[in-house]
Amino acid sequence: MSEEKVIELAKRRGIFWPSYEIYGGVGGLYDIGPIGTRIKNKIVQLWRKIFVEENSDFVVEIETPMITPKKVFEASGHLENFTDPIVECNKCHRVFRADHLVEEVLKISAEGLKAEELTNLIREKNIKCPVCGGDLGDVRYFNLLFSTNIGPYTGSTGFLRPETAQGMFTSFKRVYESTREKLPLGIAQVGRVARNEISPRQGLIRMREFTIMEIEFFMDPEDTENVPLDKFSEDKINVLPAEAKIKGDKPSTFKVKELVDEKIVINPWMAYWMATANKFVRKLGVSLERVYFEEKLPSERAHYSSQTFDQMVIVGEDKVEISGHAYRGDYDLSRHSKFSGQDLSVFKKYDQPKIIKKKIVIINKDKLNKESKDFVKEFMKRISSLKPEEVEKILNEKIDGKEIKEYVTVTEREEKESGKRFIPHVVEPSFGVERCLYISVLNAYREKKDRIVLSLPREIAPYEVAVFPLLERDELISRAREIYSKVKEKFDAIFDDSGSIGKRYARADEIGIPYAITVDPQTLQDNTVTIRDRDTWNQIRVKEEELINTLEKLFSGEEIIPKGSSNESG
Amino acid sequence: MSEEKVIELAKRRGIFWPSYEIYGGVGGLYDIGPIGTRIKNKIVQLWRKIFVEENSDFVVEIETPMITPKKVFEASGHLENFTDPIVECNKCHRVFRADHLVEEVLKISAEGLKAEELTNLIREKNIKCPVCGGDLGDVRYFNLLFSTNIGPYTGSTGFLRPETAQGMFTSFKRVYESTREKLPLGIAQVGRVARNEISPRQGLIRMREFTIMEIEFFMDPEDTENVPLDKFSEDKINVLPAEAKIKGDKPSTFKVKELVDEKIVINPWMAYWMATANKFVRKLGVSLERVYFEEKLPSERAHYSSQTFDQMVIVGEDKVEISGHAYRGDYDLSRHSKFSGQDLSVFKKYDQPKIIKKKIVIINKDKLNKESKDFVKEFMKRISSLKPEEVEKILNEKIDGKEIKEYVTVTEREEKESGKRFIPHVVEPSFGVERCLYISVLNAYREKKDRIVLSLPREIAPYEVAVFPLLERDELISRAREIYSKVKEKFDAIFDDSGSIGKRYARADEIGIPYAITVDPQTLQDNTVTIRDRDTWNQIRVKEEELINTLEKLFSGEEIIPKGSSNESG
Repeated sequence: MSEEKVIELAKRRGIFWPSYEIYGGVGGLYDIGPIGTRIKNKIVQLWRKIFVEENSDFVVEIETPMITPKKVFEASGHLENFTDPIVECNKCHRVFRADHLVEEVLKISAEGLKAEELTNLIREKNIKCPVCGGDLGDVRYFNLLFSTNIGPYTGSTGFLRPETAQGMFTSFKRVYESTREKLPLGIAQVGRVARNEISPRQGLIRMREFTIMEIEFFMDPEDTENVPLDKFSEDKINVLPAEAKIKGDKPSTFKVKELVDEKIVINPWMAYWMATANKFVRKLGVSLERVYFEEKLPSERAHYSSQTFDQMVIVGEDKVEISGHAYRGDYDLSRHSKFSGQDLSVFKKYDQPKIIKKKIVIINKDKLNKESKDFVKEFMKRISSLKPEEVEKILNEKIDGKEIKEYVTVTEREEKESGKRFIPHVVEPSFGVERCLYISVLNAYREKKDRIVLSLPREIAPYEVAVFPLLERDELISRAREIYSKVKEKFDAIFDDSGSIGKRYARADEIGIPYAITVDPQTLQDNTVTIRDRDTWNQIRVKEEELINTLEKLFSGEEIIPKGSSNESG
Repeated sequence: MSEEKVIELAKRRGIFWPSYEIYGGVGGLYDIGPIGTRIKNKIVQLWRKIFVEENSDFVVEIETPMITPKKVFEASGHLENFTDPIVECNKCHRVFRADHLVEEVLKISAEGLKAEELTNLIREKNIKCPVCGGDLGDVRYFNLLFSTNIGPYTGSTGFLRPETAQGMFTSFKRVYESTREKLPLGIAQVGRVARNEISPRQGLIRMREFTIMEIEFFMDPEDTENVPLDKFSEDKINVLPAEAKIKGDKPSTFKVKELVDEKIVINPWMAYWMATANKFVRKLGVSLERVYFEEKLPSERAHYSSQTFDQMVIVGEDKVEISGHAYRGDYDLSRHSKFSGQDLSVFKKYDQPKIIKKKIVIINKDKLNKESKDFVKEFMKRISSLKPEEVEKILNEKIDGKEIKEYVTVTEREEKESGKRFIPHVVEPSFGVERCLYISVLNAYREKKDRIVLSLPREIAPYEVAVFPLLERDELISRAREIYSKVKEKFDAIFDDSGSIGKRYARADEIGIPYAITVDPQTLQDNTVTIRDRDTWNQIRVKEEELINTLEKLFSGEEIIPKGSSNESG
């Protein structure tokens, strides 16, 4: 697999590398280098465009802190549930993810097994420390929240958020009010999160600190008619529902609307955001044939979720999760309501007041008054806590031989209801930015005649165009600089005059610049330059005044540069 | 002062508000709301444009983690020096910033006073707890780094970075290599930082978590000739140098180049980045008449700095620091070199090899060999640890009555030096994004006929244009939607159809949208719309096909809409 080669390329070309290398590094922490940061920033911009701007009628973006007081994670359930099972070697005191260790040794799936079950497996199968062979202790839970102390007083515990979501829940009321109390309301956030992983993986897949792009999408679960699925009427989507997964089936292809009609998703907004996620991933350069949504089984889901799909990308031999789509229902707002004592429900006014038939209980006071005090007391005891429907059922029961219905009538009345009060439900599409970066680079990695080409799509290429003087001669450099300034007005361009032209082409290919423009001695004579295609290495020569126009045509997909292989050698 | 009004506006309109309000809030933590996030993102983009893109020949951007291992802050000096003096009340156990308390009570400046001096002042002046009147304890230092534990092993202490800078220092070598080993090299970063402040201030000025935009600019301190100060040849800059400050003088106005010529700045790059900072602050809408650079006195500077200027903005009665400009010299790279054992120096090749005249010591071996062993020993002892220049000075000294010069000659030889090896020096311009947001909003705040107008410049306005149907009538709404789609292709636009037109204008004014376009019944007849100016409330009516063009002219400063006061009342 090309994973090692990509990691080597990433270090050499400034895409990413382990942080604090001069001190030996820290597991799970990565620096994003100059080229990686350009790609990453473009990925974030692309996500903003597709998830926020294109949905600007109902999505807004906010920013909340990483540092979070303890109470918030008590309410969210993370203090109790955001844990991994770990086991320590009694001899060398190394600590391992217990479920991963069991999976590796026994070649079974251990996801969702409880600590006790894992301990039992370790005892039964006599699993030892993989490093020193020592005996392992009991499996216990380790909380993945990084903890700290806020302010100068001890005991003011805070945690670094492991997702941005809680910021949207705790500020929901303010955002809802400042955006004029309309649903649906998507609150987006792009921000850092931290998870104290036991054994971070190499590369950008399981990191201890990373950037999340997510939306908490608040809506009325009963309002299923107004979801703009028409936007995706042509789109198909690969999904592996839970039942099919249990049976060992492969993903099937659905129309987006079929996910709703066939009740594969709990709520149509799930389908909406999954289709939006596909649109985004395709723009990263990933063919949708290699993308599918895998439903998590109940034991695999996070504690807050009543349905989760992971969006998976097949890269080489691997399947990598690029986003998660959770139906969080009213779990979070209800919990925060309870823990904070604040009402987080919303009132939704109906377009037309609804006429509701409502049963009411009418007591025949005149008749009741004529009975004894004890009778009245007993009568009230029997009916006062009952709903009208329940009173109806005991009308024939008797008190002192007299039927209840003699003293009470249950009748129906029409009432106008102007709206309803409820706690919004939440759909959450959530992407890790570094995973997007990593998958985009892995997916774009090609080797051609022993050289590396990163075939990134224009939208996320670190630069769109490179401008080179062919030789390090002053008149070529100054001419190339002139052309560079013009190109830079329209395109994201870089100027490069150091090293041989072959090396500069190779550099441009390795960091994924789609087109390289070269200024050569002929330019000084006839004002033409060459444009070279990154993927085919083919070149054309164009007049300087047609350069911008030609580049625009090339980016819009016109095949001006012939395809087919070039015989360029270096 | 309008500070309270701005904070009220910020909450109501979704600019910012205290985080975790439903739980009573946490001091120093703020959410940035939907409108605030739009402004903030534009401020970051503007900074990137001015500091990174316009300097792309020598500045690149990276991203490094907040979580930092202990060793890095041992090396950087933050574990020892990043502290504030605090004092605790013996009775109620509240904790105060000792220097601030002394300043408030005694009305003197206590910046830079040591803990012992502060304790003495508290004792001498009998300062008590400002809340309960109790006796205060001794002043001690409190470290402002948030601490946490990395991974499942106790004792792997990590800290949240209080500045992004250390990420650039620890990755300097990698970035330098991946950008082809050229100086100067500016490494920029936009990222979250955290400081465990004792008593955070209201508003966005002293926060416990915020976003920094900074550059660590690595260069050869001897290469002072190639600084592109010509870029700012017309610019003037207000500076209050340390000497003038001590004398109580006001800031003086200099040409940028004069800061170098008059040796007000240690290095010309300081002037370059200060001038760049002024360019940026002006784009935030702040008049440069209200901006000056104040030099910090040695006792006021951070431990790593050999010269610091704070860029101050006068807003109303207040002076607020918007950026800091520190000359960090080779402090950080030298310390990390020492603590990591890695060579962080660079080799700079000269354009032309330099011919260096070098003194060398030639010993007359033949003659020395003829002397006694003791003589040779004594001779070697006298000269072996000396530099040639020092040997020259003792030529006339004698051993056993014989002059040293009989056995040794000091002569001059020419040597070629192809380059030099040195540790780059660093200039650091550093902005807090939330401060920029806060200052921009304060600065743009106006009241007009009892209504609020936020006169933000186009570059950082949350939207450039709003599009409204005059009334909530279907044919006006759909016509306005059509026009909105066209406007959105060229401008950052928002559509709004809820509430009366007066309320919608007021909303647009309060969040700072420069122009509002209204579609009214006349539009349906003659295809004209109105454009309303946020600041004057004056309107013009234009044909729909001229709308985009007219907006472009308006943004480029053409006075198409008459100035003067409008008689609009609501």
